[in-house]
Amino acid sequence: MKNSHQLVKDIGEQGLLKKLQPFCPNEVIGDDGAVLTTHPDKDLVVTTDVLVDGVHFSDRTTTAFDVGWRAAAANLSDLAAMGAEPLAITVGLSLPGDVLVSWVEELYRGLTACLQQYDTPIVGGDICRSSVITVSITAFGQVLPDRVIRRSNARVGDAIVITGCHGFSRAGLELLLYPELGCQLSDRERKLLIKAHQQPQPRLDVLPYLWELNLSRPIAGMDSSDGLADAIAQICRCSGVGAEIERGYLTGVPLLSKLVPAEQMWSWILYGGEDFELVLCLASDTAKSLLTKLNGDAVIIGKIIPEPKIILQDKFNVYPSQILSLSKGFQHF
Amino acid sequence: MKNSHQLVKDIGEQGLLKKLQPFCPNEVIGDDGAVLTTHPDKDLVVTTDVLVDGVHFSDRTTTAFDVGWRAAAANLSDLAAMGAEPLAITVGLSLPGDVLVSWVEELYRGLTACLQQYDTPIVGGDICRSSVITVSITAFGQVLPDRVIRRSNARVGDAIVITGCHGFSRAGLELLLYPELGCQLSDRERKLLIKAHQQPQPRLDVLPYLWELNLSRPIAGMDSSDGLADAIAQICRCSGVGAEIERGYLTGVPLLSKLVPAEQMWSWILYGGEDFELVLCLASDTAKSLLTKLNGDAVIIGKIIPEPKIILQDKFNVYPSQILSLSKGFQHF
Repeated sequence: MKNSHQLVKDIGEQGLLKKLQPFCPNEVIGDDGAVLTTHPDKDLVVTTDVLVDGVHFSDRTTTAFDVGWRAAAANLSDLAAMGAEPLAITVGLSLPGDVLVSWVEELYRGLTACLQQYDTPIVGGDICRSSVITVSITAFGQVLPDRVIRRSNARVGDAIVITGCHGFSRAGLELLLYPELGCQLSDRERKLLIKAHQQPQPRLDVLPYLWELNLSRPIAGMDSSDGLADAIAQICRCSGVGAEIERGYLTGVPLLSKLVPAEQMWSWILYGGEDFELVLCLASDTAKSLLTKLNGDAVIIGKIIPEPKIILQDKFNVYPSQILSLSKGFQHF
Repeated sequence: MKNSHQLVKDIGEQGLLKKLQPFCPNEVIGDDGAVLTTHPDKDLVVTTDVLVDGVHFSDRTTTAFDVGWRAAAANLSDLAAMGAEPLAITVGLSLPGDVLVSWVEELYRGLTACLQQYDTPIVGGDICRSSVITVSITAFGQVLPDRVIRRSNARVGDAIVITGCHGFSRAGLELLLYPELGCQLSDRERKLLIKAHQQPQPRLDVLPYLWELNLSRPIAGMDSSDGLADAIAQICRCSGVGAEIERGYLTGVPLLSKLVPAEQMWSWILYGGEDFELVLCLASDTAKSLLTKLNGDAVIIGKIIPEPKIILQDKFNVYPSQILSLSKGFQHF
């Protein structure tokens, strides 16, 4: 009974998740969403996210509209990461009685503004009293069974493709917290970074391009909501492989380097999180076709290797090679 | 802009729900769950419930196991109220870091103990840090489109059927709070009432009997989670009708009257809530067939009338007739 007094903070989020895995069926663990077979042709994908005031958002940097937008975007991003088209979401909201009604309406305006881009309705939910604002969203989507994107599908030799830019959301947060920063940025650049933080776009737009490819096998992937390094590490862990990443191919460097010194910039790009981009692993020639279709909005940053480690290289030899741990993840406790 | 400083507690749960309705499609509002057409033969039913520590449960009366059991039961009950067979649930959990890991494990044991009775898995969720324990559950089920049970389906002349007993959960709570009460109860009776509160059973067992009936039209109904009077009032409001209820047919009176005076007993039966029984409205002859099938576990308590009010009668003339308001509902704020 040595562990009977163990607290949640002693073992952290990952430790707790491990303890709770035996309560879930094996086949649904380890992806951005769960896949349920409910239909002869299409699988149902389900994903849940909880946002807590003071942990995931704060009045200082996030309006109620943006809390709603980001909550919707995070869940739609999980669906995109599974290859699923969104059907609907539900919203479980608990909040103190002294919250402004207008705050709640703005939250819903933000939710629907993001959702409407993808014709996705809010189909229900629950509201109740609490001492802290908590927004719990469950999103459902559908996907053809052979199109399900899983973390465990990566194969040695696969090209690693990332969409968009990483570190931008983290940079936007910094600009909101410290408006005096970034005097070298143009107005347009400043707005771009802040928007990446306040109103990120789930990458559902990438899916139709994926289905146009001549795919001979399932794609591996997830979204980069908990950071790019975390996404690569999770894919490698679930697929039993490693990755070789080339720093020089990572996007966003010219802009971010105007804002902070190199070390901080790399930390934002690799660990910043909340960029809600896609990290995909697929055969090299298919990856190149995808890049052509996405027209500059995605790059190949490296390849899958057999050794279970992540090697971060620099072809220009400015930075030494680095080995990233496969177990480093984002911890909420 | 008179209302720009209006607080959530000023308008209450129902007032807030009304403000948020414009953000949801019309067709999904007003039932225990939302119905999504995702399949040629079966509709998907989705329902969400949020439980907050100190509001919906407390250490004084509820173990972690029972919090889990009740949360699962409440959601499965919503599915039963829609006529849907459960597929799966997701769990969004936020909690302080100083919660015991064993508490969380007991919560999941309670969840799965209730769910396993219906072969329903936990297929995912989210865990994060918060200052208050919040359990947000979303449940999914499937139902044949012509079997969907809706609050709006009641017709004048329908018999009103209730399963099980009402007021038992409220009585069980009282026995937990004040163990010195109920000295006239047998041990068996005491345990029965406490179990009704701690480990209620969703009435999914009723559905197969319903589908055996020769139904010529959809059934009206909902569950009595927010109280029997609330369920009747909601069905009447959604169907544009009223109800005539006979006190003498309400079950559980002999047991509850041993515990508290009549006025309090009627309040528990009508407004106690959390009994998770079904309130169904269907043609009188079909209702009688259902009673036969359920073998004493359901009664007809009255009928649907055209006038939009709920008349509570007493054929023994012990109590005067009473008119219940159609607008009285359960308020969480």
